[in-house]
Amino acid sequence: MTTIAGSSPYTGQALEPVAEESSAADVAKTVEIAGEAFSYLQGIGREGRARLLEAIADNIDLNADELIRAADEETGIGTARLTGELKRASYQMRFFAEVLREGSYLEAAIDTAGDTPMGPRPDLRRILQPIGPVAVFGSSNFPFAFSVLGGDTASALASGCPVILKAHSSHPNTSKISFATMAAAAHASGGPDGIVGIVYGQKAGTELVSHPLIQAVGFTGSLGGGGALMEAISRRDQPVPFYGELSSLNPLIVTAGAAAERGPEIGQGLAASITTSAGQLCTKPGVVFVPAGDNGDKLVAALTSDLSGSTVSPLLNKRIFESYAAITGALEKNENVEQVAVGAEPVGGGFRVRPTLYSIDAARLTPELIEECFGPSAIIVRYKSETELVSALAMVEDSLTLTLHTGVNEGDLTARLTEIGRGRAGRIIYNGYPTGVAVSWAQTHGGPWPSTNSLHTSVGATAIRRFLRPVTFQDAPEAVLPIELRDGTPPLPRRINGTLIVPPRSGDFTVPCA
Amino acid sequence: MTTIAGSSPYTGQALEPVAEESSAADVAKTVEIAGEAFSYLQGIGREGRARLLEAIADNIDLNADELIRAADEETGIGTARLTGELKRASYQMRFFAEVLREGSYLEAAIDTAGDTPMGPRPDLRRILQPIGPVAVFGSSNFPFAFSVLGGDTASALASGCPVILKAHSSHPNTSKISFATMAAAAHASGGPDGIVGIVYGQKAGTELVSHPLIQAVGFTGSLGGGGALMEAISRRDQPVPFYGELSSLNPLIVTAGAAAERGPEIGQGLAASITTSAGQLCTKPGVVFVPAGDNGDKLVAALTSDLSGSTVSPLLNKRIFESYAAITGALEKNENVEQVAVGAEPVGGGFRVRPTLYSIDAARLTPELIEECFGPSAIIVRYKSETELVSALAMVEDSLTLTLHTGVNEGDLTARLTEIGRGRAGRIIYNGYPTGVAVSWAQTHGGPWPSTNSLHTSVGATAIRRFLRPVTFQDAPEAVLPIELRDGTPPLPRRINGTLIVPPRSGDFTVPCA
Repeated sequence: MTTIAGSSPYTGQALEPVAEESSAADVAKTVEIAGEAFSYLQGIGREGRARLLEAIADNIDLNADELIRAADEETGIGTARLTGELKRASYQMRFFAEVLREGSYLEAAIDTAGDTPMGPRPDLRRILQPIGPVAVFGSSNFPFAFSVLGGDTASALASGCPVILKAHSSHPNTSKISFATMAAAAHASGGPDGIVGIVYGQKAGTELVSHPLIQAVGFTGSLGGGGALMEAISRRDQPVPFYGELSSLNPLIVTAGAAAERGPEIGQGLAASITTSAGQLCTKPGVVFVPAGDNGDKLVAALTSDLSGSTVSPLLNKRIFESYAAITGALEKNENVEQVAVGAEPVGGGFRVRPTLYSIDAARLTPELIEECFGPSAIIVRYKSETELVSALAMVEDSLTLTLHTGVNEGDLTARLTEIGRGRAGRIIYNGYPTGVAVSWAQTHGGPWPSTNSLHTSVGATAIRRFLRPVTFQDAPEAVLPIELRDGTPPLPRRINGTLIVPPRSGDFTVPCA
Repeated sequence: MTTIAGSSPYTGQALEPVAEESSAADVAKTVEIAGEAFSYLQGIGREGRARLLEAIADNIDLNADELIRAADEETGIGTARLTGELKRASYQMRFFAEVLREGSYLEAAIDTAGDTPMGPRPDLRRILQPIGPVAVFGSSNFPFAFSVLGGDTASALASGCPVILKAHSSHPNTSKISFATMAAAAHASGGPDGIVGIVYGQKAGTELVSHPLIQAVGFTGSLGGGGALMEAISRRDQPVPFYGELSSLNPLIVTAGAAAERGPEIGQGLAASITTSAGQLCTKPGVVFVPAGDNGDKLVAALTSDLSGSTVSPLLNKRIFESYAAITGALEKNENVEQVAVGAEPVGGGFRVRPTLYSIDAARLTPELIEECFGPSAIIVRYKSETELVSALAMVEDSLTLTLHTGVNEGDLTARLTEIGRGRAGRIIYNGYPTGVAVSWAQTHGGPWPSTNSLHTSVGATAIRRFLRPVTFQDAPEAVLPIELRDGTPPLPRRINGTLIVPPRSGDFTVPCA
């Protein structure tokens, strides 16, 4: 039997074994127990699940020290960022408790019986309900907020779906302790086994997504890893949705006006955005369009000045370390690409690398030069005209984000680039930087393939929609209806015969009166 | 080059050729023109698209005679039902105009900039936007309401997506005239080519779903046909959602209490539901659970009495005709299955068949005996106990609908069966019949695989969500925002900092005041 262990990014050495690889029987049993917990999660209702999420959040906060220590040992991310990230994880759990209590995510709708232009209509009552056990594969780069304790888990549990986690190969101990933290909170709140489960090993992951009881898969990781899971899913008798976040270039465009007005300031902002978390963010700006000429030069000068000789925390694991060397090595060998900045030679070994910055003329750009490079690197594309910019941008794959820095008198150009951006990304950022993804109601973290392959966000309130499907009750007796569809129901937003009716919530905006 | 022609269900004879099979170049050109129309559809906004849908509805009504004549010739459905169905198609177009004007389908949300427990948050504004050209494969059994002029088309156009139709092989002329009706309305309303397009032939259909510009596929048809398209989609570089409605058994359960209270009445209702439209409805009750014993016998007697010697309109095409013969033939050979009723020998040839009814003891039921039989046939499963009922029901695949007939004093049983039903179907009907699907806000026409493979409905207001994806604007200048996200916006329901705000609509419920 294979044992599961991470490696230290600080030394490159293997760490202590954490668990045995889960057998096929382990996986099957874990999923079956989740199946049993499914009705419990539905039965406790929105308030019960809100309290469960809050209990998990509280236990995350209580176990912060142990969690952060384990994550730093396995990821090398450093305790400062990990402290912030863990706060984000518990915040996210509490945020979904709020989403549950507000209740409009259910899309509750009642069409009363009556005559319509198409003849008599029965009483129809629609609600969204959870789909069943969900498999979640967390990311390497966010061991908390996009992993076992992350947004997929929070939104799936909120919806009422049990969650089975695949422990991440590069932070299995963090996964294990995170899972124990959640499971303990679920038990303490009176829940049965199976609200959350965990399996270890790549083979177990494939078996997990192939299990007939699994109803959806959340995945954050590489195109290759995601592709393998999608293939396993396509072999199922019953297809299930795959919510993958796979790869993102995050183009950032600086117009002539913006470069003239604040080139050096943008250069500095970019340096921070490219190197934060050692460039290992899915929203890192990987390709930057800068106008040719003096103003663009000044921007690049500020950027290279900040990057040259800089250092970053080590990369997360050996695969990312080797991939970074391969992609930057290929760029260095290309005669059309110039290396314009390089960080300090790292001290301390392990998976440490030097930040790098490359530049190419837009006219010489080819699509293979702009693949995602996970790490502290970016490529600058210098363009001479809007036409050249637009052609070069067309070579970049669709992304999670697209960022525009435009000048104060460039309203028309901003509008044109916005129209392009809307078709290419899930979030458009103006005069800012794509790194940093707020957990909120209006957030979108998702974009066209290959950034994600779904029509949904994985961050923010509406992430919950991924784990729900509609059901309509026709002429149902009141007693069998979900409480949210009954006539005498606690206040929640509902659509009655087509009109949204929102009851006032204490502490909220007052609903305006006619 | 192959020509495309339907057959007459009344005679079985081939009809006049309608078109040539579309070449690969035709398909590519059709999709490219649709790509160009995409920005037009976005540009005219919700009011522009509402008027487009109304213009299409008006033109459908104007061309009703020609459309119904063509459809009856190719489908044998008869002018009475076709008249009603065409009314449904134009009603549906107008209904989506209403959905557009109401506007909450956009899920517009604004999080204003400010401090949060996680630090400062930028201004975030989220909206749903159309995904791009959509391919639609209509059904054989609804040549209007689930075909070229059907719900997939209406909801996709409403969302702002151009639609490319695959002409149905068994009603190509109806498809052609329907398309011309829509295209003429689109032109007359000032639209460019490409708002709607059409292709002919099975190969063209595969090429259509493989084209990189196509962003989603709507399909109503057989498991086999759907499977072939899903395979073509899985070979794409960029996966796209497949919204298929493939197969549905629609179990109907009669409890002991219901059989005692109104067995004969249920039997009569069932006979009508099984034979309406020659049983060729995706919501036809195909498997009926009836208690063993006297009360159940009385129900079956009423049902068989109505079915015996009855006649129905011809089946739609040769494939369905042959499949009906094969499935009923296999049931007749099975020694555990009893044929309890058979309709009159059909007069007139063509694709006419006899209605049939079979019965089996629940204890002898096996899953292969309950595959979907498209046509006027059903199988009755006689059960001796709730345990036997539940085990037998577990053999039935998940469905679009599940129907419960229960007695007045069977509240607990109704609740237990409802819980089972919620996991097995998209709509649960109480003391009624599943045939008949109202177009409304609270409708769900969709269920777990294989009835559909999506988390959405294909009938009713929320069908539009299938063709939308979210985009978030971060710190955007007012001028580049979609009008629905601007500060001074026309009234529509929006979520502001987490709270749904619904402006009053004239003629609607007044929003209650605190």
